Amino acid sequence: MISIRDEIGTPLTDSAVKIMLLGSGELGKEIAIEAQRLGVEVIAVDRYANAPAMQVAHKSYVGNMKDKDFLWSIVEREKPDAIVPEIEAINLDALFEFEEEGYFVVPNAKATWIAMHRERTRETLAKKAKVPTSRYAYATTLDELYEACEKIGYPCHTKAIMSSSGKGSYFVKSPEDIPKAWEVAKKKARGSADKIIVEEHIDFDIEITELAVRHFDENGKIVTTFPKPVGHYQIEGDYHSSWQPAEISEKAEREVYRITKKITDVLGGVGIFGVEMFVKGDKVWANEVSPRPHDTGMVTMASHPTGFSEFGLHVRAILGLPIPAVEENGIRKFPILTPAATHVILSNQEGYAPRFRNVFKALNIPNTTVRFFGKPEAYKGRRLGVALAWDSDVQVAKRKAEQVAHIIELKTRSGEWQGQGFIKKKHLL
Amino acid sequence: MISIRDEIGTPLTDSAVKIMLLGSGELGKEIAIEAQRLGVEVIAVDRYANAPAMQVAHKSYVGNMKDKDFLWSIVEREKPDAIVPEIEAINLDALFEFEEEGYFVVPNAKATWIAMHRERTRETLAKKAKVPTSRYAYATTLDELYEACEKIGYPCHTKAIMSSSGKGSYFVKSPEDIPKAWEVAKKKARGSADKIIVEEHIDFDIEITELAVRHFDENGKIVTTFPKPVGHYQIEGDYHSSWQPAEISEKAEREVYRITKKITDVLGGVGIFGVEMFVKGDKVWANEVSPRPHDTGMVTMASHPTGFSEFGLHVRAILGLPIPAVEENGIRKFPILTPAATHVILSNQEGYAPRFRNVFKALNIPNTTVRFFGKPEAYKGRRLGVALAWDSDVQVAKRKAEQVAHIIELKTRSGEWQGQGFIKKKHLL
Repeated sequence: MISIRDEIGTPLTDSAVKIMLLGSGELGKEIAIEAQRLGVEVIAVDRYANAPAMQVAHKSYVGNMKDKDFLWSIVEREKPDAIVPEIEAINLDALFEFEEEGYFVVPNAKATWIAMHRERTRETLAKKAKVPTSRYAYATTLDELYEACEKIGYPCHTKAIMSSSGKGSYFVKSPEDIPKAWEVAKKKARGSADKIIVEEHIDFDIEITELAVRHFDENGKIVTTFPKPVGHYQIEGDYHSSWQPAEISEKAEREVYRITKKITDVLGGVGIFGVEMFVKGDKVWANEVSPRPHDTGMVTMASHPTGFSEFGLHVRAILGLPIPAVEENGIRKFPILTPAATHVILSNQEGYAPRFRNVFKALNIPNTTVRFFGKPEAYKGRRLGVALAWDSDVQVAKRKAEQVAHIIELKTRSGEWQGQGFIKKKHLL
Repeated sequence: MISIRDEIGTPLTDSAVKIMLLGSGELGKEIAIEAQRLGVEVIAVDRYANAPAMQVAHKSYVGNMKDKDFLWSIVEREKPDAIVPEIEAINLDALFEFEEEGYFVVPNAKATWIAMHRERTRETLAKKAKVPTSRYAYATTLDELYEACEKIGYPCHTKAIMSSSGKGSYFVKSPEDIPKAWEVAKKKARGSADKIIVEEHIDFDIEITELAVRHFDENGKIVTTFPKPVGHYQIEGDYHSSWQPAEISEKAEREVYRITKKITDVLGGVGIFGVEMFVKGDKVWANEVSPRPHDTGMVTMASHPTGFSEFGLHVRAILGLPIPAVEENGIRKFPILTPAATHVILSNQEGYAPRFRNVFKALNIPNTTVRFFGKPEAYKGRRLGVALAWDSDVQVAKRKAEQVAHIIELKTRSGEWQGQGFIKKKHLL
């Protein structure tokens, strides 16, 4: 089904190459832009109208992506050359069925199935890929949760088996926290989550994402190309700022590539993967993997050359196009053009038609820009934009991205002007 | 009317900032993308459906842009914050009327009126801006044409007063060429062209475009920021390859900025301008000016940082957003991130739904990419795509861009596969 592609046609004609985005958020928007620039037709799908990627797509569909019939109805109508999941909340049976019928699901249905479920991910990392992870245990009752935490030791992390962006997670410092952790996991879990995973707390120096891309080389062989590791920090389980390159040792970097290669080889297919890892000194632990562009990888819009952001890399890979790389010690590397950083712009309120102010002042900072995603509705904690900055010194880029994000204020129709000051943790300035 | 903008809303809501593109080709497509990334609503207008910019716009209108009523009907309906001409074939009366009614026409109606007409442009350059141009004379009859050519001397160039992209132009080597030159000017002219301009032939070292951007600074004052000059060569009056930086002396570069400043000060308004010039040693002659992004400036998609291509600069300027610059000797400069180059991909055939092949091989060249514009119809000489390349050495970038463009072949439904070999002139490889 998937192979080298030598030909591209014209969108909206019978020669069109078509991709269908399942999920049309800010990551999908940039995937759509990269595809548009290559003359590829884009069909954007999401649960609500005017989602970011829909605004730059040729066509869009609004519907329930957990509903198999809805997905089948649009796939059979459009017959896309690639079905590109952007999020996890998609009917998995449909993805497997599409694959059986000869459709190309990116990177493949099984990888999506594994990555959306923390137990399957853990077992894949630890037992199939055999890479270092933090120690872990499972619990299905409150009693088992006490037992599992005791076994792993304090502090530790409890997480709902199916969840995303830190929802359903709790940082357990001592046994007293366990009832609260239990409650959070049960309440915030996505899907039927009767299991909780308890994970060892790694006292890491830095959290990173390795954005590996699996793609065809000129011999039709699938190879893996590695951008520079992306450093990031999270607040309440959600990415807040990222930068590239990450400040890790050469030895750790080699280990990052080794671990990432093992994981992505197990997952298979073509496309970009975001592998989240903890790094302490030269030691590296794999934590999570997303078989698609990663939030933290938005930094590559500034750090990589045009057409080669993580979104551009993803589009090339899934279309069967090449990704030239620099080979060093048998590793295909994708070099940065400049160090860069991102900082999120979050809503702390609900409502419609958000507005952003202090934009002139923010954008007057040299070597920075901003993306406003165009989301029609805000809610507490929703990401509405991202600040980008670049500098020959990555530390300067980090501070600038934070500065830009923190100058901008936003409000919805019925809300009040707010900045990013409602989150006090971990910032630099 | 136009001023610093401090606030941006959400597209497709009542808080939206809206721009309307009059002309929706490949330049408009990139303007649309930059606007989309800033959360600005984009309305694309052109004479045919599925034009490139329409494919990435929120909304589009198809109609005759020479028709004043058509333009008024869509402007009154949409009430855009900026009306952005992308081409010259637009009803000018309408642009002046929009301005009178308080609409913002980019950069202003008068600049558009001047730039679309070679006599007005010449008089503006030579007499208002008082910058060096080649010598010139006018003719309205065949007899006057003989006279004018005699006065300017051979070889010289004859051009229809209203035309674009080299149409209606002729290179007159001796009096024997004059009947042919007369015929070409009369036949190919756009609009009511009863006048022909005869221009001295400058034996230049290099043809360049200076992409100056007029925009607000933090004090609400309009300032001019200068990217590095773009080198280019033309074939039959149409741009074929461009690169940045251009190989000119420091002294010539200062002269380029001086001349460009004088011209753009006369034209006024905010937005990007492409000033075409001839350079020989330290001497510079102004030739033409476009009050909008310039074909040759597509190179800035690769040479400038994200959000600051000529399209990004244009969008910032017309929205009233800042453009941080590096000040040197009182000149605001916008530095490149890397040297880069472009090479056009032209159709040598007519027909629909063009396809491109050898794409894998072309894109396997490191540090290059391509844009396929998605134009539904091809005709002889129509630009369907552009190759981009970057390298620390601009000469390498030039060769790579040419290489990529020349590897790709294209065909329409009823045509045959063709490369770029049908044009033999001026190439490097």
